[in-house]
Amino acid sequence: MASENGTEAVTSTALLTDHYELTMLSSALADGTADRPCVFEVFARRLPDGRRYGVVAGTARVLDAIADFKFTDAEIGQLESTAVVDAETLEWLANYSFGGDIEGYPEGELYFPNSPILTVTGGFAEAVVLETLVLSILNHDSAIASAAARMSSAAHGRPIIEMGGRRTHEWAAVAAARASYLAGFATTSNLEAGRRYGIPTRGTVAHAFMLLHASEEEAFRAQIAKMGPDTTLLVDTYDISTGIDTAVRVAGKELGAIRIDSGDVGVLARQAREQLDSLGARDTRIVVSGDLDEHAIAALRAEPVDAYGVGTSVVTGSGAPTAGMVYKLVEVDGRPVAKRSAQKISRGGRKAAIRRHKSTGTAVEEVIYTVDGPVPDSDEYDRALQIPLVRAGQTVDDLPTLDDARARLRRALVSLPWEGLKLSHGEPAIPTLFL
Amino acid sequence: MASENGTEAVTSTALLTDHYELTMLSSALADGTADRPCVFEVFARRLPDGRRYGVVAGTARVLDAIADFKFTDAEIGQLESTAVVDAETLEWLANYSFGGDIEGYPEGELYFPNSPILTVTGGFAEAVVLETLVLSILNHDSAIASAAARMSSAAHGRPIIEMGGRRTHEWAAVAAARASYLAGFATTSNLEAGRRYGIPTRGTVAHAFMLLHASEEEAFRAQIAKMGPDTTLLVDTYDISTGIDTAVRVAGKELGAIRIDSGDVGVLARQAREQLDSLGARDTRIVVSGDLDEHAIAALRAEPVDAYGVGTSVVTGSGAPTAGMVYKLVEVDGRPVAKRSAQKISRGGRKAAIRRHKSTGTAVEEVIYTVDGPVPDSDEYDRALQIPLVRAGQTVDDLPTLDDARARLRRALVSLPWEGLKLSHGEPAIPTLFL
Repeated sequence: MASENGTEAVTSTALLTDHYELTMLSSALADGTADRPCVFEVFARRLPDGRRYGVVAGTARVLDAIADFKFTDAEIGQLESTAVVDAETLEWLANYSFGGDIEGYPEGELYFPNSPILTVTGGFAEAVVLETLVLSILNHDSAIASAAARMSSAAHGRPIIEMGGRRTHEWAAVAAARASYLAGFATTSNLEAGRRYGIPTRGTVAHAFMLLHASEEEAFRAQIAKMGPDTTLLVDTYDISTGIDTAVRVAGKELGAIRIDSGDVGVLARQAREQLDSLGARDTRIVVSGDLDEHAIAALRAEPVDAYGVGTSVVTGSGAPTAGMVYKLVEVDGRPVAKRSAQKISRGGRKAAIRRHKSTGTAVEEVIYTVDGPVPDSDEYDRALQIPLVRAGQTVDDLPTLDDARARLRRALVSLPWEGLKLSHGEPAIPTLFL
Repeated sequence: MASENGTEAVTSTALLTDHYELTMLSSALADGTADRPCVFEVFARRLPDGRRYGVVAGTARVLDAIADFKFTDAEIGQLESTAVVDAETLEWLANYSFGGDIEGYPEGELYFPNSPILTVTGGFAEAVVLETLVLSILNHDSAIASAAARMSSAAHGRPIIEMGGRRTHEWAAVAAARASYLAGFATTSNLEAGRRYGIPTRGTVAHAFMLLHASEEEAFRAQIAKMGPDTTLLVDTYDISTGIDTAVRVAGKELGAIRIDSGDVGVLARQAREQLDSLGARDTRIVVSGDLDEHAIAALRAEPVDAYGVGTSVVTGSGAPTAGMVYKLVEVDGRPVAKRSAQKISRGGRKAAIRRHKSTGTAVEEVIYTVDGPVPDSDEYDRALQIPLVRAGQTVDDLPTLDDARARLRRALVSLPWEGLKLSHGEPAIPTLFL
């Protein structure tokens, strides 16, 4: 079993790809259409049910993954042995390197139905083979960031730690930590996210540490001996009230925080605050966790909670685990193209977008227009939404950082009409206008 | 941005771990409790809302990931530079290698609330640090397999291709393809799953290939020239009826299949079947895709559909994207331990399980018992559910393969009472009895 499922080190992203991308390619190479100039566009036909906005995340990961999209001997050998494509196609793949252009919404930007989130320009073949990888990353990361932004917004400035790694695929966990941080979370429990993205990591102990010891007091003493009194003690292994008494007795009034991970955390937080205050531990913070989502966080706004730990709900997109973005061919040889069946209507042509704002800075509408058609009127309050990301295959310099994305999202959320920040189901915060 | 998010090749799984696992460890090393003999147990307190059964998947990936759980210089350097733990702990981690025992339900086995899916025995420290990684893998893979099994069951023998890679994290996609195949899917679109797990991959073309060409006919001709008439032509880019006419005209009556990816696929499949038959293409298969889940598949049972393509719903666990399993300390120094707060009750003690069956082979109940207590009566129809997986740190030989897991699940599903295969919300298919 171990060899069958061996986790050999894979440094290429090229096989994180649907079979049909390569068979399409082989047909296109054979009939001479492979190099036709094409434009592909990533967009979401709609937001997840009832959501008011989406948050773009994953773009930086996309650019890295494209740079690593190489068919080395290992990938070519696999495709050859399984006869996925013919020798001509294999040769083309062995020489593959994306040489086109990409522009898109920067990370941390809001998006709405049909926003042109990413535009890939190049020959048909070089652009089509990126479809699966681009969508995997954007659909995952944007789903997480979109959920996390609602939670950050509901937390109203109180810090949130992302601790959901155990509830999702082990590598999705790392990307989820990044997307949550982008969307305003303060820290993560995920150590690989700390290494890879420089996100601050946090953690103290689990219930297992409490149970390992003969008594709660013994466990608290061991933790404080190692971590000092400014640590967070987990007080709900047995009786919470007794736990808090013991915690303050052992740590003193300078105890950093207590964590409550179960029960009606609102009621428990209020009781805990009173108890801590009565014990003189007025600066001891209260951290709550345990199946919190944006609605639970909002419901706790009036309670004396100092920080939230969020797991399952954020890494699963809080009911919307994928963003539903598609990668559609919109232009061939300068001509707009689109699927025209009765079932799904798409709009052809390469597009760009601006977001209009009132003079107060409040967003009014997303205006999408065909680049080859009339350009919308715009004033000083409007903002073009796409930025260049790749030019002739090279990632452009000085792209926004992860911290830039955090700042961008904070500004963008402030610009939404107030209804747009409501957690309840409703229409997108601003309408999309096709020019 | 590219360097900030660099995708260096990581061969160790050690940082796919929550910060608190290592801070717990450091406290345990300091106070002398790190080597206490412990037993940790993985179980789900409940099934996802309304589900009748869960399917164990990911165990083989867990064993591989544990083998790769090594703190090399790179991991130690990261932990040192971010001051996560002290020098004593870093030294312990640098020498880490799991040396304990693991048993568990084999992949493809069904599980129910509280089934002891995995049991990890070892010193506290060596076992606790595996928590995050073990749960990430089992929670993800079992969620996908549990959803996929419902779809396979609803498909009633018709093949399903997994094609959801673009709707989930790029590496989760590979694991999702494996879990779906384990649960009875026939093939996947994911090329990396083909390489890594030997799963057959399939694919032909997307709508982009149709739009690349000046006409549907030109696209069909290009595809058939390359792939032969036994390919699958995508007939819903423009008008489906015209598409089918053109397809048969170009490919002849030996056309392999048509695919319909949009619209009311039941109605469209019936019309397509009539049309194909009237054109003499009686052996041409009909493949449908487009937002199918287990309910849509079941609703198509009476329609002339030959194969299903399933994407979003399977990779997101069809409404239950995580299995909700936990990794709990149940025994220390041979004594049962458990959280005893009013909010969450856990059962201490190392456990095992048998599944009782009627003489007809129908499953009756899951019996969970403490290994140190009385052993349940059992007869020839009962079946012990755990198998040895790791002994003294070494993965045991001849573990079940992925194909074995497929076969095991097929047998297990047949053993369920008929209500257990219903797709509607309800109670678990069999009750869990604690002895």
